[in-house]
Amino acid sequence: MRPVAILGIGQTIIDEHWDKSLREIAGEAAFAAMQDSGVEHPEGLFVGNMLSPLIGGQNQLGAFIADWVGMWRAEAVKIEAACGSGGAAFRAGLMAVASGEMDSALVVGVEKMTDKAGHDVTAALATAADADWELEQGISFVGLNALVMRRYMYEFGWKHGDFAPFSINAHANAMHNPYARLHNKITVEQFEKSAMVATPINLLDASPIGDGAAAAIIVPAEQVSTHPSRPRIVVAGSGAATDTLAVHSRKDPLFLTAAYLSSKQAYQMAGVGVDDIDVFELHDAFSIMSALSLEACGFAERGQAPRLGLDNQIQVAGGRIPICTRGGLKARGHPVGATGMYQIVEVVQQLRRECGKTQVDGAKIGMAQNIGGSGATILTHILKAG
Amino acid sequence: MRPVAILGIGQTIIDEHWDKSLREIAGEAAFAAMQDSGVEHPEGLFVGNMLSPLIGGQNQLGAFIADWVGMWRAEAVKIEAACGSGGAAFRAGLMAVASGEMDSALVVGVEKMTDKAGHDVTAALATAADADWELEQGISFVGLNALVMRRYMYEFGWKHGDFAPFSINAHANAMHNPYARLHNKITVEQFEKSAMVATPINLLDASPIGDGAAAAIIVPAEQVSTHPSRPRIVVAGSGAATDTLAVHSRKDPLFLTAAYLSSKQAYQMAGVGVDDIDVFELHDAFSIMSALSLEACGFAERGQAPRLGLDNQIQVAGGRIPICTRGGLKARGHPVGATGMYQIVEVVQQLRRECGKTQVDGAKIGMAQNIGGSGATILTHILKAG
Repeated sequence: MRPVAILGIGQTIIDEHWDKSLREIAGEAAFAAMQDSGVEHPEGLFVGNMLSPLIGGQNQLGAFIADWVGMWRAEAVKIEAACGSGGAAFRAGLMAVASGEMDSALVVGVEKMTDKAGHDVTAALATAADADWELEQGISFVGLNALVMRRYMYEFGWKHGDFAPFSINAHANAMHNPYARLHNKITVEQFEKSAMVATPINLLDASPIGDGAAAAIIVPAEQVSTHPSRPRIVVAGSGAATDTLAVHSRKDPLFLTAAYLSSKQAYQMAGVGVDDIDVFELHDAFSIMSALSLEACGFAERGQAPRLGLDNQIQVAGGRIPICTRGGLKARGHPVGATGMYQIVEVVQQLRRECGKTQVDGAKIGMAQNIGGSGATILTHILKAG
Repeated sequence: MRPVAILGIGQTIIDEHWDKSLREIAGEAAFAAMQDSGVEHPEGLFVGNMLSPLIGGQNQLGAFIADWVGMWRAEAVKIEAACGSGGAAFRAGLMAVASGEMDSALVVGVEKMTDKAGHDVTAALATAADADWELEQGISFVGLNALVMRRYMYEFGWKHGDFAPFSINAHANAMHNPYARLHNKITVEQFEKSAMVATPINLLDASPIGDGAAAAIIVPAEQVSTHPSRPRIVVAGSGAATDTLAVHSRKDPLFLTAAYLSSKQAYQMAGVGVDDIDVFELHDAFSIMSALSLEACGFAERGQAPRLGLDNQIQVAGGRIPICTRGGLKARGHPVGATGMYQIVEVVQQLRRECGKTQVDGAKIGMAQNIGGSGATILTHILKAG
């Protein structure tokens, strides 16, 4: 397959967009990416979305969005892998171009979650877990993550407060991202005292839902020139893997096997190792997921990821592996099916050096990891500048 | 891209499978395809499904089914394009193998629709239409098709009874398909007198819902040998296109532009013309859709497709273009997200000469066309024996 590059990106502010429909926010991100790239008529459209059938009463988002953005005749489909939908759609789009099937693909991750009451959204999000074997027990999706976090703390001897740096870092970085959902710095004290959701996960361990869309235009790398002011962003590595859907079926519920496998595939394809990654947009739906992701991808030993936070190694300024540089799921927000595309867009921003106060100095190689369910579907992408 | 072949197929009987879960029927078809092909560990899984979030409370069917069939670590995603989901998943699977990304892909179309009451299913199916601009008017999906049929009858001067041959042919063929949902022959009188659903569509114009799964294993064509007793089935052509989601947005609501475009792409890729197609599994969700599909693909002039039925040209025995040879959506059944894969499986059966009393003599080239919504997403595939 031929190398591909990301020629344009677009995103909307993540918020409660009660005044805009799903097609409008998808269009806003798509048109921004088209304008950024100069590609007005992409040949194919790949949409990442999880909840539109349940919350918006709308299926067939491929044709739906193609229609809205003026791609009436193009190929268009929706890819769904729960909260991993955006990353899965990105992978489908890059395969379409890398294979030679088309010369340009638009990928849009979109989610509109705030049109329904919170309990309806909680029920809809739970469809990411195993309906027959997990949900039938009455557990919510937060509850599943809480069991994992509690076990992790017990196994490796961490206190709840040891996870604070993950959320503090995310909130601090989001202050400088105009597209972020939350713009408030938080302290260790606030982290410790915030309202409990499902012990030990409290409000500041958990990412907020929101409405949002993010998009990218993918083209063959050979069609993109590189300039000092705007480096070419190549998709150097891509990996996809699955794990058991139900957490209880895993041999080790504290290890994200699919993150390990998909990152390994991406490292190999890109010809890089963990030490080469300058910036990592990971899937911090809950603070425990930051830890598990860092460990599975090789940034920390088993059970030791909280140490990275406590030692200031996840920060933009001087950190060994800056994460959530635009706010992460925790503070940029988590419009579930769109999140994977926000991560891609943010890594592109880093490699283009467009991140202002949260710019990682000299960032040349960035990684994005998008997780569906409690680790069942994981997509890892490595982008390179130049 | 390299040529690919279908090495194995599997399917379940379409029925009200109240005693089986979605994962069980998906597994039944998947295991049958694996056994038929001898491929025990496909490298990727592509699932076509439309309604599982709405009817089964289950998302992330990629990981869900990968888990159940023992593909725990493989790449796995779900593709959704309303009733075109099965065909879209097939196209994703064939791209994955054709591109060289993987050497074997399992594609499963699956739908479980009968666990909910009929009005819930009707509401769920309506998510294939435009929620904001069609459904808000209170129309159902059958209602939309009824408007199209009524206009077609008015424009081209056909009576309702002129559509009878489409349904009679489908029911007659299903008599010989053990996997079909319905096993009853029907007459012109029954067709004319059956209960009205949405004028002019009555019960015998409409396909029945059902629970079912169909699957195929795709591999590089060069890895498959051909024998007189079991010819190699190559995917010679593949096309995908979209139209506006809402019927009222179309310049001509009686022409399936996406069927025209996707069949043209498939003909070109396969290097064949409409006269070369020996058998055509089309998307007869309603009898009017048979007519529109035949016209858009070049088998009949505009407004003249009912003539093919009245002149006995759609029959297996001596027909110019045999359609719905295993019963079609009308009598084999229409488990929506699975239908596109049933069509692929049935074309393979024809090219392998496994169809007994509905075998098309000397069938070498077969076509399958899968439609999402009222023509918004259309996938066309051409398979060749040898």
